[in-house]
Amino acid sequence: MTTPLHEAHPSSPGRRLPDTQQGMRRRNLARVMHTVNAEGPLSRAAVASRIGLTRAAVSTLVDELIRSGLLEELGPERPGRVGRPGSSLAVSGRGPAGIGAEIGVDHLAVCAVDLRGTVRARVVRHGTNRGRPPQPVLAELTALVAQVVAEAEREGLWPAGLAVAVPGLVARDTRTVVRAPNLDWHEVDLGALLPADLPPTVDNEANFGSLAELWLGDDTPLDFLHVSAEIGIGGAVVVDGRLLRGTRGFAGELGHVPVHPEGPECACGGRGCLEQYAGEEAVLRAAGLTPGENRVEVLAERAAQGDKEVHRALRDAGTALGIALTGAVNLLDPQAVVLGGALAALAPWLLPSLELELARRSAGRACVVSVSRLGPEGPLLGAAHSVVRAVLDDPAAVAGRT
Amino acid sequence: MTTPLHEAHPSSPGRRLPDTQQGMRRRNLARVMHTVNAEGPLSRAAVASRIGLTRAAVSTLVDELIRSGLLEELGPERPGRVGRPGSSLAVSGRGPAGIGAEIGVDHLAVCAVDLRGTVRARVVRHGTNRGRPPQPVLAELTALVAQVVAEAEREGLWPAGLAVAVPGLVARDTRTVVRAPNLDWHEVDLGALLPADLPPTVDNEANFGSLAELWLGDDTPLDFLHVSAEIGIGGAVVVDGRLLRGTRGFAGELGHVPVHPEGPECACGGRGCLEQYAGEEAVLRAAGLTPGENRVEVLAERAAQGDKEVHRALRDAGTALGIALTGAVNLLDPQAVVLGGALAALAPWLLPSLELELARRSAGRACVVSVSRLGPEGPLLGAAHSVVRAVLDDPAAVAGRT
Repeated sequence: MTTPLHEAHPSSPGRRLPDTQQGMRRRNLARVMHTVNAEGPLSRAAVASRIGLTRAAVSTLVDELIRSGLLEELGPERPGRVGRPGSSLAVSGRGPAGIGAEIGVDHLAVCAVDLRGTVRARVVRHGTNRGRPPQPVLAELTALVAQVVAEAEREGLWPAGLAVAVPGLVARDTRTVVRAPNLDWHEVDLGALLPADLPPTVDNEANFGSLAELWLGDDTPLDFLHVSAEIGIGGAVVVDGRLLRGTRGFAGELGHVPVHPEGPECACGGRGCLEQYAGEEAVLRAAGLTPGENRVEVLAERAAQGDKEVHRALRDAGTALGIALTGAVNLLDPQAVVLGGALAALAPWLLPSLELELARRSAGRACVVSVSRLGPEGPLLGAAHSVVRAVLDDPAAVAGRT
Repeated sequence: MTTPLHEAHPSSPGRRLPDTQQGMRRRNLARVMHTVNAEGPLSRAAVASRIGLTRAAVSTLVDELIRSGLLEELGPERPGRVGRPGSSLAVSGRGPAGIGAEIGVDHLAVCAVDLRGTVRARVVRHGTNRGRPPQPVLAELTALVAQVVAEAEREGLWPAGLAVAVPGLVARDTRTVVRAPNLDWHEVDLGALLPADLPPTVDNEANFGSLAELWLGDDTPLDFLHVSAEIGIGGAVVVDGRLLRGTRGFAGELGHVPVHPEGPECACGGRGCLEQYAGEEAVLRAAGLTPGENRVEVLAERAAQGDKEVHRALRDAGTALGIALTGAVNLLDPQAVVLGGALAALAPWLLPSLELELARRSAGRACVVSVSRLGPEGPLLGAAHSVVRAVLDDPAAVAGRT
């Protein structure tokens, strides 16, 4: 699958290479990519000094990455530096692209992000998917993916992978939607319904949203709990910069943490789950409004106009969030809680009661609550960037493809 | 600190070794130790074939481990095997030992465990530590440690490290007890109160208990939630075989998850925490009994005699545990919940209501609840074994000491 390379540390000819030598080469390719990505443009010498390999070893790795379209040379470095001028390296803007897709309850979206993190193509289609069977929705999504891929290819990019965000529980096979109650989908194999030439990685929208926070957020810590909402309440747990997936892939289901154990029945089978108090529909009902489209916009608009019923409903939702988060903070001890998705837009009216509840239950041990800058864009961006990160983390897996 | 070794893959003389070569040697030493530990006695050739290195490379690593007292040769293999007889290797029973200590509310305990996992010395002193200041307790513990170390040394072992389990929150510096409410200790630096020649690693008792389950339990999965009780309710989260510590080291505090948000006040500052319903003292009060020593024995004895009040109190405690665990299972999606510590002895009367509550709230998604075989021995064994595992994981760190 990959082009053979001279090893940075050659062994005697004919000697069997242990697994670790091949692994070291792959790790070194990734170190070069990550270094140029984080600090580029950089000369080969600068890369070598940063990762502690010889210039010759780095040049071999760099040549391979340029041949594969992952790095590009920008021409000679600016004059005025000490030493012989070298060519400057940057992550390629014409190589692989990550294709992200989102199946929302009320929309479909697809985008392409290049290795530099720039969105190069994007398309959104509004309209409800609630109650629609999976086949026509996936057919529509497939057409949007083709449209975005074509647009990316016109810019010299090629799709390195497809990641799909869904509002539901996804199995650890990363293709089966086990349960998406707000779409009314159960046990749907999305892998079989999307084009075989670009096999998708499917994940929960809150999971992709949390990864977007981690990679693109302002000063997001490495340990945090991400809470988001569309119709349901989603959550994701990030520990040491890695998503906690759980045994079946279902970790982070904050929406079904019991808040008032004898409260109203929930679709999950439980009673008094957080979703019954802080989900969009629950808040609309509590404010005396009828759920429809543009739920969040309606709430935010009325709250901004000073609607007392909406204020009270959002205050109560904040209190319920505070109770559920107290339990989560006790279990996980995260550095921060990040509110994303629809919750970000409603934060001004949710946060005061949420923070009060968390503080009074935690005796000075409460953690910071912050609001996502990405808001509802998080899941789509997280999906596309997850493909980009996979290329940066293991460039050898795509090298030699072009 | 370590004896120089020939590299398995020599580089040209004078060339600066990259960090990864040294790291590879350390990893290979660990692979040899773990292989012999898991499958020994084994010949050098068998070790080489299992870890995919040459026999010569393995012999160099093995010689170093024998010189350091970590492996020993058992003499020639049994006849009847194919090929030239080789000497059989086993993990040493006369090398380093892990010293584990436990500060309980009602006892102190210390033990020494050799690299084979055998307890070689053990001492327990009963008597309450509640309200005693840290200094005299630590002085007493230091004397017990000296007694166990002397006993281990008489058997040819030497202490590779000391790990101390405490019933409270421990900072990530692994020496400061931030808060141990049932001892009434706050911000105590145990590192400064224990002998400097054997610097301790201090951790929460539920954390060490969970590691004991992981390493010594029957078929314990790699993802589980450990729940234990002494006076408080402790918890620990293990993900992919690693303890989830949290930002400040406080993760796993299941005892302070809100169960009934407007319930009785808790010492933590919250209301209606799990500990108010399922802690030992709460259960004793609910059963109309006066808390004293031997609380668990009293409850287990009366429950076995058919005491209806005790049955009811334990059933209600099980229900509260089920509510708190529903939240935890939704957040973490573990493969199992393991009840340890005092809860293990009371499991026959807690489990039915606990499992019922978890099942009715989780609609078929509930996870297995199992009962620890180690029970109250878990934290002490986990502490001692954590030292042993550290030696197996990085033998180079102790090699060359003898």
